[in-house]
Amino acid sequence: MTEANSKRRTRGGGGAARRAERTAVSVETAKYIERNIPNFEILTPEALEIIEANAEKVLAEIGVNFVNNPVALERWREAGAEIDGERVRIPEGLARKLCETAPSSFVQHARNPARNVEIGGKNLVLAPVYGPPFVRDAEGGRRYATMADFRKFVKLGYMSKWLHHSGGTVCEPTDVPVNKRHLDMLLAHMTLSDKPFMGSVTEPSRAQDSVEMCEILFGKEFVQQNTVMTSLINVNSPLTFDDVMMGALEVYAKNNQACIVSPFIVGGAMAPVSVAGTLTQVLAEVMAGIAYSQLIKPGAPVIFGAFVTSIDMNSGAPTFGTPEASQILYGAGQLARRMGLPFRSGGGLCASKLPDAQAAYETTNTLNAALLGGVNFMLHACGWLEGGLVSSFEKFVMDADQLGVLHKLAQGVSVDEDAQAMGAIAEVGPGGHYLGCEHTQENFKTAFWRSEVFDYKPFETWDEEGARDTQTLASNRVARLLETYQQPALDPAIQAALEAYVAAKKESMPDAFM
Amino acid sequence: MTEANSKRRTRGGGGAARRAERTAVSVETAKYIERNIPNFEILTPEALEIIEANAEKVLAEIGVNFVNNPVALERWREAGAEIDGERVRIPEGLARKLCETAPSSFVQHARNPARNVEIGGKNLVLAPVYGPPFVRDAEGGRRYATMADFRKFVKLGYMSKWLHHSGGTVCEPTDVPVNKRHLDMLLAHMTLSDKPFMGSVTEPSRAQDSVEMCEILFGKEFVQQNTVMTSLINVNSPLTFDDVMMGALEVYAKNNQACIVSPFIVGGAMAPVSVAGTLTQVLAEVMAGIAYSQLIKPGAPVIFGAFVTSIDMNSGAPTFGTPEASQILYGAGQLARRMGLPFRSGGGLCASKLPDAQAAYETTNTLNAALLGGVNFMLHACGWLEGGLVSSFEKFVMDADQLGVLHKLAQGVSVDEDAQAMGAIAEVGPGGHYLGCEHTQENFKTAFWRSEVFDYKPFETWDEEGARDTQTLASNRVARLLETYQQPALDPAIQAALEAYVAAKKESMPDAFM
Repeated sequence: MTEANSKRRTRGGGGAARRAERTAVSVETAKYIERNIPNFEILTPEALEIIEANAEKVLAEIGVNFVNNPVALERWREAGAEIDGERVRIPEGLARKLCETAPSSFVQHARNPARNVEIGGKNLVLAPVYGPPFVRDAEGGRRYATMADFRKFVKLGYMSKWLHHSGGTVCEPTDVPVNKRHLDMLLAHMTLSDKPFMGSVTEPSRAQDSVEMCEILFGKEFVQQNTVMTSLINVNSPLTFDDVMMGALEVYAKNNQACIVSPFIVGGAMAPVSVAGTLTQVLAEVMAGIAYSQLIKPGAPVIFGAFVTSIDMNSGAPTFGTPEASQILYGAGQLARRMGLPFRSGGGLCASKLPDAQAAYETTNTLNAALLGGVNFMLHACGWLEGGLVSSFEKFVMDADQLGVLHKLAQGVSVDEDAQAMGAIAEVGPGGHYLGCEHTQENFKTAFWRSEVFDYKPFETWDEEGARDTQTLASNRVARLLETYQQPALDPAIQAALEAYVAAKKESMPDAFM
Repeated sequence: MTEANSKRRTRGGGGAARRAERTAVSVETAKYIERNIPNFEILTPEALEIIEANAEKVLAEIGVNFVNNPVALERWREAGAEIDGERVRIPEGLARKLCETAPSSFVQHARNPARNVEIGGKNLVLAPVYGPPFVRDAEGGRRYATMADFRKFVKLGYMSKWLHHSGGTVCEPTDVPVNKRHLDMLLAHMTLSDKPFMGSVTEPSRAQDSVEMCEILFGKEFVQQNTVMTSLINVNSPLTFDDVMMGALEVYAKNNQACIVSPFIVGGAMAPVSVAGTLTQVLAEVMAGIAYSQLIKPGAPVIFGAFVTSIDMNSGAPTFGTPEASQILYGAGQLARRMGLPFRSGGGLCASKLPDAQAAYETTNTLNAALLGGVNFMLHACGWLEGGLVSSFEKFVMDADQLGVLHKLAQGVSVDEDAQAMGAIAEVGPGGHYLGCEHTQENFKTAFWRSEVFDYKPFETWDEEGARDTQTLASNRVARLLETYQQPALDPAIQAALEAYVAAKKESMPDAFM
């Protein structure tokens, strides 16, 4: 943890804020996952060393491009890299050395301190789907996403027990001009939820707006001393860093806000078809990106990202939940841990167009790999459909329910005296049953994770109730959650200041739709 | 491997058999999985020692019941156990000592030697669903299973690339008398498939029939010297061994045929609600059962089984794919490996009534745990629905497809020169793409696992083709596989002898439906 992040929140807000917090309707949110189980390590130490040596060679001999960014090139030159046009060749060892100032773990603060998350170590923080231009639900089918959809997803995220983070672009509100969307999206996260959230990255100026809105919400001094946003900086794989993403990263790093430096790779297209080759490229890209963040501000919080899928060589479409993607996730996790950096990967990823069995097979493969592969920050943990083109309302609550499985599995196995249950085994004896025994009565309420979505009823009851499939059950749950949603309390003065900021900003520029 | 099992097959069969084998239509079946990845170990050595010590205490102080089985009690007395009515108390260390003669790995022979499987070590052998009285498909809904259904499942299993084993009671043929079913079922496995299969356990006499039919298929001497069946012996948890199951085990052990000794546990009902308590009971039961098999015949091949699920404390229904079930699977795998025994657990287990998202979430949780938890023999790997009440045609091919994911993941990650792909990274460079590069062209055909069931098409194409969900796609695949099925060649003399045996046996007894 950085020095700044270890300080307690000191912002003001006054009596109104404190009263608002006291009267807030309580929504149960589980603490982020603190793993009490080992990580699954698929690569041998020898394999890891080969990949690490190759990544250094890639940086030194091939290099990376920093596009339209003369200031970045100058920073790299000063740090000791060799500059050739937009190409940056980084001598062996330099990038890794620069990454050493990045913290191994950091706290992202939420406006409700009970929702703060610590990203790194053995922890796993879960955030919802990010980026889809479409939404789908059982009633309305597939359609372009709107700001009204966006608000619904933020509400569902707030209501989801196993979701620790409100996320960022839970869907693209296509009914709002591109250059103003980020304002409405941030306002929604800040006012409709009290969980931590992500900032805008689509323009450096929008990153700056995100910082300014956080200064209203948290107080200016608090923001400069603490991390209150974690934002997604995608690398243009292979080996290319564009000025828009780097510009956003610069704003966030300077303001001590966290960035995920994340190669976005469809294997076979943006990286080699082999797992080892892809891992080499991912490592080279992450090292270059994180090293650059530390050139901007040593100690700026960052996350080693790896969004990796493979391509279907028949159709050219990206695929999800495949064994190669799991192998890359496991390997990337090991590489991140060897660098002492928080790790982002995984999610409820799937290629299916519907929240059906295909979606669930693909999603569950990825969720399991992410838990066992040591992921610290999981974007897309719920709601992702159709290769990220669609945010699905039903899949949001289906996946969010499954995240409970990860929480319980991560607790590991207790062998304390109560868990040993030797008294119960003796009490029941051969041929008996445990339903009524004392140990069962004392422990059954917390013994087993239970789905809030699935049907566990006997066949006859289920059949009489309409033989509903998972999508139908989830659809009912979405409606129920949105009906019972209550906005978490917020100091009215802060709410008004945020709304005024958004209105003024919108007023200051013409609409843009590109 | 036992001495007997390491001998090559020497049965006769003559020219007709050899000609039949030569002209057989080839159906591709992958070799059983040989893991090149580590196992996931959830329990610490200290936790394992506590559970092992507790299991010894359970056997010594509480003991197990061998019901209606005076001969078994006498065997136990001679071995050094303390007998009290039907209760057998086994002094600390005795059961584990007796288990030492069981082989750590054994070959189960198939009539087509290319389909032989080795069960144990780092291997994973996949077998289909076992036991449901109902079947379901999209067209006909849920209904009682018949022998016609049974034959269809055997054909689907034969056609499934990732399935190594034909299984046993793929569904209960309820239209055949209970006392004659096993004959028709075995005949189907022996003639409609050439993969290895399981024997009957519902009566000792039916186990004997199974051995005799194998003697016709493989030759008498071959059966006595080699393992040609792996059969499922369930323990009546808690701590009870009934005479029917033990009678079948006795027949198989005497004939050098393999048995899975498998506690059948719904946690909270047949075992304590805690993971550690359940593992203690599982270990005690397996040690007692396997020790008994070695009393019958030292060296008889056996498998450490653990079929464990938990109970929904609201409805009393068993649940599947839960985190507690995964924890128990991981822990039981560690206990089995410490005994040097092959391990059975996992499967495509689910509680859902339909092959929908719930089914796939639950199934995939279990499949992943089974791969990483070191399972050597996975029953129910495909086709299981509704808590084991239903064999689903669609889910059979959906799950069987997903088994390909396990094969690829288990290969681990190559870091040979080709996999390192350094030439490709240099060739493509920053900002390029890998689709056309030499390395991609050379490797793309085998680089990525690809589903044969899922839809990877663009949204528009998928929509025009009817917006089909996974169940519909699977339904089409079931029909296509059954249409193209061709029976594997078999010496007509053997086929005739098997049919004559079945006819004579059926003739020899009245129908029984209980």
